[in-house]
Parts: sequence; structure tokens; C-alpha cells
Amino acid sequence: MTTAAIIGGGVIGGGWAARFLLNGWDVRVFDPDPHAQRKISEVLANARLALPQLYDVAMPEEGRLSFHPTIAEAVSGADWIQESVPERLDIKHDTYREILTHAPADALVGSSTSGFKPSQLQQSVEKSGAVMVAHPFNPVYLLPLVELVTTDANSKETVQRAEEILRGIGMAPLHLLNEIDAHIADRFLEAVWREALWLVRDDIATTEEIDDAIRYGFGLRWAQMGLFETYRIAGGEAGMKHFIAQFGPCLHWPWTRLTDVPDLNDELVEKIAAQSDEQSGARSIRELERLRDDNLIGIIRALKDRDSAAGALINEHERQISAPLAAPDSEISAPLRLWEATVLPSWIDYNGHMTEYRYLQVFGDTTDALLCLIGADRDYVKAGHSYYTVESHLMHLDEAKLGERLTTTTQILSSDQKRIHLFHTILCGDRAVATAEQMLLHVNSSEGRACPALPEVSAAIEAIAQEHSTMPRPETAGRHTGQRRFA
Amino acid sequence: MTTAAIIGGGVIGGGWAARFLLNGWDVRVFDPDPHAQRKISEVLANARLALPQLYDVAMPEEGRLSFHPTIAEAVSGADWIQESVPERLDIKHDTYREILTHAPADALVGSSTSGFKPSQLQQSVEKSGAVMVAHPFNPVYLLPLVELVTTDANSKETVQRAEEILRGIGMAPLHLLNEIDAHIADRFLEAVWREALWLVRDDIATTEEIDDAIRYGFGLRWAQMGLFETYRIAGGEAGMKHFIAQFGPCLHWPWTRLTDVPDLNDELVEKIAAQSDEQSGARSIRELERLRDDNLIGIIRALKDRDSAAGALINEHERQISAPLAAPDSEISAPLRLWEATVLPSWIDYNGHMTEYRYLQVFGDTTDALLCLIGADRDYVKAGHSYYTVESHLMHLDEAKLGERLTTTTQILSSDQKRIHLFHTILCGDRAVATAEQMLLHVNSSEGRACPALPEVSAAIEAIAQEHSTMPRPETAGRHTGQRRFA
Repeated sequence: MTTAAIIGGGVIGGGWAARFLLNGWDVRVFDPDPHAQRKISEVLANARLALPQLYDVAMPEEGRLSFHPTIAEAVSGADWIQESVPERLDIKHDTYREILTHAPADALVGSSTSGFKPSQLQQSVEKSGAVMVAHPFNPVYLLPLVELVTTDANSKETVQRAEEILRGIGMAPLHLLNEIDAHIADRFLEAVWREALWLVRDDIATTEEIDDAIRYGFGLRWAQMGLFETYRIAGGEAGMKHFIAQFGPCLHWPWTRLTDVPDLNDELVEKIAAQSDEQSGARSIRELERLRDDNLIGIIRALKDRDSAAGALINEHERQISAPLAAPDSEISAPLRLWEATVLPSWIDYNGHMTEYRYLQVFGDTTDALLCLIGADRDYVKAGHSYYTVESHLMHLDEAKLGERLTTTTQILSSDQKRIHLFHTILCGDRAVATAEQMLLHVNSSEGRACPALPEVSAAIEAIAQEHSTMPRPETAGRHTGQRRFA
Repeated sequence: MTTAAIIGGGVIGGGWAARFLLNGWDVRVFDPDPHAQRKISEVLANARLALPQLYDVAMPEEGRLSFHPTIAEAVSGADWIQESVPERLDIKHDTYREILTHAPADALVGSSTSGFKPSQLQQSVEKSGAVMVAHPFNPVYLLPLVELVTTDANSKETVQRAEEILRGIGMAPLHLLNEIDAHIADRFLEAVWREALWLVRDDIATTEEIDDAIRYGFGLRWAQMGLFETYRIAGGEAGMKHFIAQFGPCLHWPWTRLTDVPDLNDELVEKIAAQSDEQSGARSIRELERLRDDNLIGIIRALKDRDSAAGALINEHERQISAPLAAPDSEISAPLRLWEATVLPSWIDYNGHMTEYRYLQVFGDTTDALLCLIGADRDYVKAGHSYYTVESHLMHLDEAKLGERLTTTTQILSSDQKRIHLFHTILCGDRAVATAEQMLLHVNSSEGRACPALPEVSAAIEAIAQEHSTMPRPETAGRHTGQRRFA
């Protein structure tokens, strides 16, 4: 068990707390704000709903969260201390002094600062080798990027340990050796922000039009490749060098007004606030957060399916945190619990209910999870064998509604070398909403004909079937469509 | 049938050609480049693989593509002419003169220019009211954004017609009334680009580190919300105004070097090219294109499931292009033929087969068509009654493959005032690939309990059941899962 101290709550500190907790760390918080506990609980509630949805393996058991009245108490026993106090150098220096006086000798201190360079943070601090920039992005519990900026005062071992800790909680540390104000990402954000302020001020575009210009165009590109790889593609066969060189002249065109700084006076502030209310005011901040998180989950999961960009990071983290598969006989629960899903907006039909075929989608995903469990996974399929579903009997017992969490149970009714006869149930809480009785046939896919499963797969399913053989048979198994329910 | 002329091929012109073609337009291309035909074919091949994967309805039948030796011939009969010639004003003016001399009087001309303002394009052009900026984003066949910039020379009707045409091919026209160099999005791209050049030049970060800083952080945010909505969330309950106001001082911090223009000399060009080779050189441009497209499909589909951002645009476009249900045959056929569908790329699983639940989707659509036919349509549902599927028995007899055309047949096995017992078959040609035996229950949806159907609906289903009563009962009706096929 490892311990993090969070000095300064709020959205960023709360996000850090959530990421550590959900990755199994104990978290000790110091924040003098009387609302700190409520604020962190809110961030944590969002994070608990969101982060596990990125993973197909169980995350570690959640750590213990505690609140402390002093920095001295909060940092006691901490391995990592994350500072997210206001952006004033004098406050930060005082905070580090207090931290370093009371923290364990080998504790590391990361600062969430957006703008200060690590050398500024380290000024007039003893043991400054423990202090570095670890700048995250909101929502901290979902976005993997953390800019890790160090100086010569930080030893190689310190940097390496910091990277390991950050990777361990699923983040992607981007280590910068040459410090610069605002690091990297915020310099881009600042450049875009300045330009956006001009466009709004000069009535070229509203806040909503600017957001659309981003999210319907280059925002989609940047979620998966960045700037240079995108341009590399645009350059095509002629190559990156040719492509870059032709940009030279454009740099002198009057395409940005960034040589000036817009005056952010009351009038411009009012204008932006009013346009933003018009654009997004129909939704509360809580609703927007949920929408954002849900979108980010979908995007990252799509990238995960493709083992690309942020999705590849999750796959890598899964390999780190997933316990190696135990021998099947120590794993088998009766019934199996293999799959969870949340009812998404697109699953709802014009009746306002979850569409019929989405139930079969959840059953199909559960079957896929079963096949993975017994070793009939994608590699097995690639090698030429597969199970096909030849028959399904679905019963709809109750309704699932938007946003509800579904879990499934699976009972193996019987199996032999070629067939698996199973019974899935979709549960919403402990309410069964649908069942599926299915027959799967093992096939040689190139020949398209039934054949016995390979021995280790056969053995794995037989072991489960054996374990399930004493379970009572589901009432509706063997039922045909239209059969009287209590015949 | 509508016709587009593409003046200037390449990646952008080819992307336009693909978008029009795949949305059912005929496309006539003029490009003096001897490689134009090959280049456009390559873009089109990518687009054919990619764009249909965003849709769950069949796209229109692809239009006809032809190549023409002169602008005069290419624009003949064209409704929309898209100019993507090099960024030189004199070339553009000559091109418009040639286009407007030969095009139909009411044809519209969109320019793909990244930098020129529409007033510049319209200079010294007669009939300049037809010319406007329609600036797309690469890959044009996947990204919906098109900046539509007009001047007072463009009539309201012209702008409206342009917007309709662009929406008709699934794009999101962002109409700007106040022109500005480089429109909106490219001003942001330019700002980030300049900053990125500095960072590489000064060895703060490599091209790969910059790409990671984007795609692991704010790039993920920007794929779904833009700048302002993201900051609105960051501002939290305190409100947008409070949040913006606190940014004032930062604008004067030295966070960007954009007051200077970096000198893009040979040394910097070489450096960027070398870093980019190091980062992405292991993959060919073709491979990178496929990766990008596949990622974009995943991201947009994730947003589509959530009916958000670019995904909401696809849902809206689907509603536009899905054919209204065929008028019900006055004569009852035995069996009924109610539905047709094409196996879409997104319906194919990692086995290379049509995913299980997509069969139930086709059966569900067939059931919906039956319910429309008997008058239990959406209005009936709105008024408080509905049929729910309570039970389905699916049998998979054969496989359906990508692009195959599926038709369904429906036999009513029995019905009474509350229930419909039916048997659907999915056919591929005359080969049955799957069957579904279903039981539907008529309910009062507000009370959530079974009740008799309204008289006209009852009468309609009874009439069909009567007509079908002499049909032989399907062999597998009444079968339970796992029952021996020829018992």
C-alpha cells in the first residue's frame, strides 16, 4: 500500500485524489477550505463512475481517503505529495517548506502549477531535489497527460521514481528537461485562447461557433494524432521536409493577431459570459461534466479498441494492473460474472426504452468475455478456430433505462467438445431484466464446419460446466417462444 | 440526381469528390495533373472503406465519377462546383471566369481556400454572387466541418442553398458573415503551429513530445467540446464570468513566443523532418491514413452513441437520408416482405462476420415496419399504446457478408387482441441466413401492463393472420434452444 498527500483540493487536487484512490493508494488531504471535503467528494463521485469504464479488468481496491487539519499531519507517511495551491510563488515556497519539514525523507513533491518553472519552485527551498512540476489536465482522473518538468537539482533516480509512480496510476508522464514558462501544452492553449478572445471581441465568431470550429474539425484529429503526424499525412508522399518548407511564407501572413494582447476588459468578459450562457446554459456544470466524461470514455475506449494514442496507454496500464489469470478452477464463480455496461443514450428507442437488439449486444459481449476466459480469444480466432452462436432464446422480463448500470451472470448448462449451452441473465441491481439461452458451436472457420475445440479450451469450459453442474436449472431454460410461463 | 464539378484534385479535391460520390452525387473532375485520376482513386478507396462505417443506415447509391479535359466540360450541368486549385489569387480568378462562363446560371462555386477572404476571391469576377469560401478539413470525407464564408455579394438564397447542399452531404457548414484572413480554424492551427516551431527549434520538445502533449491531453477534450465549453466546466459553479476575468493577468505573462515569427530556415526544416521520421517513419503515409481514419471512425461513432458533437451530426444526417418506409401494399402478401438492409462495415465483427446483435437489429426493424403497417406507428406509441417484444428465438443458419443485400419475410403464426406471434426470416438472395420467432405483447405504456390493441390495429393484424393461416408452419417454430434439429 502506498500513500499520497494532496495539498490543496479543488477540481485539480480532487482529480489527483480520485486517480490515486481508484488506483489503490491511500490519500490524505489538507485543504483549509471548509468546502474541501464536499468538493473532493463530488470529483470522486464522477471519477468512480468514469475511470473504471476505461478498463476491462478490475481496478485495484480503492484506497482510504482521509482529511487532515495540518500539512504536517497530511504528509505523514506519504510517498507522493501533490501540491495544488494557488499560483503564487510565495505561497508555494511556504508550502514546500512545511511539507519538507514533516514528510518522509524520500517523499517526492509534484506541483500542479500551470505556469511556474521548476527552478522557480525550487528557489529558497532546502531539499529542493524532491520538488518538481507534475502538471495534469482536467479531468485529472481521465486524461493521462502529466507534464513532468525537472531541473539539475532533481536526481536521475528521483525522476525515474516519479515516472514510475505516475505510470502506476495510469498517467503518461511527458518529461521535459528544458524548462520553459507554462511548459508545453498550456503554451498552445494560451495561443489559441488569445486568438479566440480576438475573434469574439471583433464579432468574427461566437463562443459556440469557435467551439464548433474546433470539435467538428481539427479537434477530432488531435484526439488521436497530434500536430506533426497529422501534417505528415497531409504532406503525403512528397515527405515531411517538402511539406514543412512550403509553410515558410505563410508564417509572415497576417493570420493571427497574436502580436497583440487583447484587453480583457469588463465589456469583453461580459460578452463571452453571455455567449457562453447562450451556448451551454441549458445544462448545469454537473451535467456538462457528465457529458464530457461520457464522451471522453467513449473516445478513449474507441482508441483502446484500436490500441492507438490514449487507448494504447490504457491497454498498457491494464497489462500492469491485471493479475495474471489464475488457474480456471480457482476462478470459477457460480454463476460467472463477466460483463458490465451502462445504458447509453443511443441504446434508447423511440419508446424511451432500451432497444431490443442492444440486449443481444450485451449478451454477445458477455459471450465474448466467456470465450476470452476459456482461451478462445482473438488470437485463437486468428489461428482459425472460433465459436459461433447458432441459436438464442431471449426473454424480456423488465426494462432497463438510460444510464442504468447493467451486470450479467452466466451459467453453463452443458458443454461437450463442440458445443456450449449457456444461460445469461442481465441484471439491473438485483432485478433481472432479460435472459438469453444460447447454443454455441465450435468451428474451424476456414472450412466453415463444426469441429472439436482445442484441448485447453475444452478443458477450461468443462471445468466451468462441472462447477456449474450443481446449480439449479433456470426456470425458463428449454422454453420455446410463446410457451405458457407456468405451464 | 445532382452533379458536382471538382476543379483541382489532390487530397482536398479528392476528399470532396469522395464525399459527393458516396452521398449519391455524380462527380465530374477537371485536373491537369496526369496523376489526378490515380490520386483521386486512392482517396476514394479510403473514403469507401471509411465513411459508411459512420452510418447505421445504407448510404445512397454511389454516383458516377468522370474525368474531363477542360473546365468547360467538367462544369457542364453542375449544381455545385468546388475549386481546390493552388493558393494564388490570379489562378483562382482565371478559374472562376472559366467556370462561370460555362456553368449553369444557378450553379454555386465553393472555394477550398485556407487563407483568402471571399471578397478577394470575388474581385474582378462577374457573377461574383455565386462564389464563396467553402473551406473543408482533411480528411474531407470524414471531418464534418466546412467554413462557409460569404460577403454581401452572396444573396441570402445562395447562402441558404449552399448550406442545404453541404448538409445534404453530411457536412456541418459554419457560416461566417464577417470575413477574416484564414477564417477561424486555421488561425488557431497557425497559432499552435508557430508556437510548436519555436519549441522544436529551441529543443524544448521534439515533434513526438508535442504530439503526445496534444493527443494525451487537450486534444481529447477538443474532439467533443471546444475551448469555451471546456473552460466553462473548469470554472465550475462560480460561473463563466468569474473564470474568464481571472485570466486577464495571464495574458501578459510570457507564455508564448508568438510576438516573434520563427525563421523557418533549412536547419529548422531538417530538424523537424528528422524528428518526424524518427516518430512516424516506421509507418507509410498510406498506413498512417488508415490509422487516422480508423481512429476517427471510432471517435465519431463513440460520439454518435452519445448523440454528442460530431456524432450528433451523423445521427441528424441519418434521419435525412434514411428512406421513408415503403407505402404498405394494399394486398397482403404471404409472407409479408417488409424490410431490406445492406450489411454495413460497422456490422462486421473481429471474426469477419456480421455481428450477432445486428441480426436482431434487422428483425427489430422488420417488426417496426409490421407495426407501422398495422397502424401501431409512432403516433400510436405517443398516444400511450405500444407492442413490446417479450420473447425471441433466433436461429443462425448461414452467414451474411459485408455489402450483401438482406431482405426479410414475415409470417404471422397467430394473433389475438393482446398478442402477435410471428416468424421472421432474413434472406440473402434466396438463401435464409437467420430466423426469429417472436412474441409481441400489446401494452398500455403509461400503466406498463398488457391490454387489448385498439380496434383498427386489432382488425389489421387479424386480417393478416387470417391470410397467413393457410401457410405451412415454419419447421423450426415452437423449437426450444438446443432441440435436435430433426427430432
